[in-house]
Amino acid sequence: MTGRDGGADLRPIEPSPLVILVRPQLAENIGAVARAMGNGGLFHLRLVAPRDGWPEQKAWRMASGAHRILDAATVHENVADAVKDLHRVFATCPRLRHIIKPVLTARGAAAELHEIGARGLKTGILFGPERAGLDNDDIACADSLIRYDLNPGFMSLNLAQAVMILGYEWYIARAPEAAARGLQTNETGIATKFELEQFMDHLVRLCDESGFLKNEQKRPGMIRNLRHLFQRGEITSQELNTMHGVIAELARGKRP
Amino acid sequence: MTGRDGGADLRPIEPSPLVILVRPQLAENIGAVARAMGNGGLFHLRLVAPRDGWPEQKAWRMASGAHRILDAATVHENVADAVKDLHRVFATCPRLRHIIKPVLTARGAAAELHEIGARGLKTGILFGPERAGLDNDDIACADSLIRYDLNPGFMSLNLAQAVMILGYEWYIARAPEAAARGLQTNETGIATKFELEQFMDHLVRLCDESGFLKNEQKRPGMIRNLRHLFQRGEITSQELNTMHGVIAELARGKRP
Repeated sequence: MTGRDGGADLRPIEPSPLVILVRPQLAENIGAVARAMGNGGLFHLRLVAPRDGWPEQKAWRMASGAHRILDAATVHENVADAVKDLHRVFATCPRLRHIIKPVLTARGAAAELHEIGARGLKTGILFGPERAGLDNDDIACADSLIRYDLNPGFMSLNLAQAVMILGYEWYIARAPEAAARGLQTNETGIATKFELEQFMDHLVRLCDESGFLKNEQKRPGMIRNLRHLFQRGEITSQELNTMHGVIAELARGKRP
Repeated sequence: MTGRDGGADLRPIEPSPLVILVRPQLAENIGAVARAMGNGGLFHLRLVAPRDGWPEQKAWRMASGAHRILDAATVHENVADAVKDLHRVFATCPRLRHIIKPVLTARGAAAELHEIGARGLKTGILFGPERAGLDNDDIACADSLIRYDLNPGFMSLNLAQAVMILGYEWYIARAPEAAARGLQTNETGIATKFELEQFMDHLVRLCDESGFLKNEQKRPGMIRNLRHLFQRGEITSQELNTMHGVIAELARGKRP
């Protein structure tokens, strides 16, 4: 969501699978694919018979800085030529067909791509043209199919989106345990328990002075409730400072 | 990758979180977001101050059949108004900021959204404008942040891609165990062991007739090798029929 043209650090996660676009129609989509590849740590792009020829400037305009991916892309006449130096080929295939091949989810495929790549083998993923998808001859060149786990009632998946999901899973699969757990938040600003205690002392003192806690029987419970309120979540030092100011100011009462 | 305009069955996974686009700039992107929502089983769209007004026909043209999502979208003046009936709000935030809130991955957020929704609470996710992203006031309206686990060197993430990844994780999180394992392949065409045996008998008979297996000492090992070859993978009845034809034809020898 932030443009960073020029400063792009594409950092592929090597050995990364090749993205092979089969008969892509719109150069804009090729550019959008390159951008999605950059997001997901993919780098190697092959184009099989792009409809409008290659290179096409529109692709670079849509790539949002992922220019090196487009610069390095190669063009091939047919799928067989595009996969001839690869050891394992996957084909994205939204519909079930009468073809018996292993079918993987994007997540399952990403794990397998890492595993195969770690053995020093070259992998590639076929993505079909925007409207029709891969045909049966294309799919015959693949060892396994990838079928996304998405709403089966609405499978109209944009080409760059299909690459994005695969790239996203590819990136995550480098360290899958990190994906499930939350990321570390920046903890430097969180108030210490001592700072919280200082604030509670300040608050209770002012509440006592104002008469708010004058009911001796209810006092401990009310203080506990206040403590719970400020204990909850991870309050920051800055937020406590603000609250110090707020209660001090309130305690001064209405100004004349 | 397949167009299915008109026949779209959007089937949201309810209770699905609201997608809230904050100050979106291009109507095309709003349409692409609706399409991604359809893929991921999301339905409820709110627009905060869309730059070019609303409705905009360009959005419908880019939605690839997800029209009902756009038809039902509501427009709001500011983020506070767009979230006022929600119980929990998440904000997508590509950059770390000096704000202390829980930070989740897309996967972690999807699990939490399901869990919160199952308790009958309404949730929403804020997505910022195309260039600038959410500002600090927007983020102050959120309880938690979502940060995608993607290449940190190339964070230029298209708005529809950001929604796509969240929708993808949302869809998968309805049944997370299905995502990791492969999908079932269509097993109806796989040859039975009896069919395989018939073929092996045919093959061995022809090999014997041709003299290929005349070395009695090596014969068992060679047959075992052939068996391994055809046993591997899940060969289909159709493929076996083809092979029956191939070996029969080869055994006839060169034609005059």
